[in-house]
Amino acid sequence: MSRGRRIRLVLGYDGSGFHGFARQEGLRTVQGVLEDELRRMLGVDILVEGSGRTDRGVHARAQVVHFDLPYGPPADRMVHVLRRRLPADLLPRDAGEVDEGFHARFSVVRKTYRYTLDLAPLPSLYWYRFSWHHPEPLDLAAMQEAARHLLGEHDFTSFCAAEARQRDKVRRIDRVEFRQDGSRLHIEFEGNGFLQYMVRILVGTLVKVGRGQERPDRIPLILEARDRRLAGETAPPHGLCLWNVEYPPEYGGKVIDLADDL
Amino acid sequence: MSRGRRIRLVLGYDGSGFHGFARQEGLRTVQGVLEDELRRMLGVDILVEGSGRTDRGVHARAQVVHFDLPYGPPADRMVHVLRRRLPADLLPRDAGEVDEGFHARFSVVRKTYRYTLDLAPLPSLYWYRFSWHHPEPLDLAAMQEAARHLLGEHDFTSFCAAEARQRDKVRRIDRVEFRQDGSRLHIEFEGNGFLQYMVRILVGTLVKVGRGQERPDRIPLILEARDRRLAGETAPPHGLCLWNVEYPPEYGGKVIDLADDL
Repeated sequence: MSRGRRIRLVLGYDGSGFHGFARQEGLRTVQGVLEDELRRMLGVDILVEGSGRTDRGVHARAQVVHFDLPYGPPADRMVHVLRRRLPADLLPRDAGEVDEGFHARFSVVRKTYRYTLDLAPLPSLYWYRFSWHHPEPLDLAAMQEAARHLLGEHDFTSFCAAEARQRDKVRRIDRVEFRQDGSRLHIEFEGNGFLQYMVRILVGTLVKVGRGQERPDRIPLILEARDRRLAGETAPPHGLCLWNVEYPPEYGGKVIDLADDL
Repeated sequence: MSRGRRIRLVLGYDGSGFHGFARQEGLRTVQGVLEDELRRMLGVDILVEGSGRTDRGVHARAQVVHFDLPYGPPADRMVHVLRRRLPADLLPRDAGEVDEGFHARFSVVRKTYRYTLDLAPLPSLYWYRFSWHHPEPLDLAAMQEAARHLLGEHDFTSFCAAEARQRDKVRRIDRVEFRQDGSRLHIEFEGNGFLQYMVRILVGTLVKVGRGQERPDRIPLILEARDRRLAGETAPPHGLCLWNVEYPPEYGGKVIDLADDL
């Protein structure tokens, strides 16, 4: 039997109500909710593969998944059909048919994560689910100086969970950018891949620098030491958002070009 | 025994997780969460009076409550103390001591509600909790013309729940203002008081006009008829936010002057 058509789907989600991306029995997860809905729709088990896991509480503006459909609606109706069936915190944004060579995880070229800090004196009712409220002032220039030391290829053992799933800890960071939007400070990280908790530990370390508790020029030493204890705390998950996933040009490059908003 | 100091507290809340403002046994409500926390803090029952009820799912930028404290922290520490104890979706914004003549409900002079529609083709992960997603286009000029007929003092029987708590249905609307912010359309209603579901039915009726299903110049007839069946549907609660409450000048007028944000 043919495996059918391969569909690539772009999903946004508010991570507040999910125990992360990866299916876990008895818990509400992104993969679980989507697979369950596809089974209800089509009457067969459909395996959903994601571009990578996101941890509990982490959001996505553009997570990418693929799955193979033996039959069912054409790709250009998929977003419409799923939007009516999925809960409001799981938003199908774009769908298309791709050839069998495409794999949501193995074909990834680069990823972008965005971390948001809210520096206002009072937390905001719009932003508390999507930002780390940090009313104490931060030295932005020092944080930017520290961030420059992260660019390029490094062994990020110091900046990932001790129990990280990935064995090879070498990754390349192409861009760390700071954007201010009112009281919010967004920090964007673009690179060829990220280890477990890596962005959150990078943010925790940059914030430590911003508080004056760590020197920017110590970043190279922390990288070299390959020792998690030298980096800062792990920033809370709800400030983090999987912002974009990039594939090779034959698969459309960056899969989504949305307004700068969730 | 003296009733102690009277405290006026301004509260913001994300209504998504509450069964409305008013205490109901076994349900999570704003009044219930606040009273329970005050009892845990002080060891005595404290009755909280609000400026009015908000329905299940309705938000508040600045709900006002008062309560009498036999002892406990000074008013200027109250926000800080409560912020550490209350959940993230219930945000104490301002507190002050007021004289016994002040009553959160009976002293109200005017109130402002804001209703938000999101007219983007796709719902937004930031806004879906705080807006009515309405991707179909609306005739804004017709809605503004309809809104002008609502200004002034009217019997709003046609625009409130059939089972509304209030007996006297005459209210005065001083301002209906439309603000566009990207794909969001905010409609602000300012008046001396609002009946149960009144703002949501007004919005449902304005949207009916915006869709071309009702004529703007029929608003006076609908008002005169005093018949709920002639008005539009009740707009969903999660687009509605209690925006501000105004008291007489001796109690500080508008109690809060925040940025135009939640």
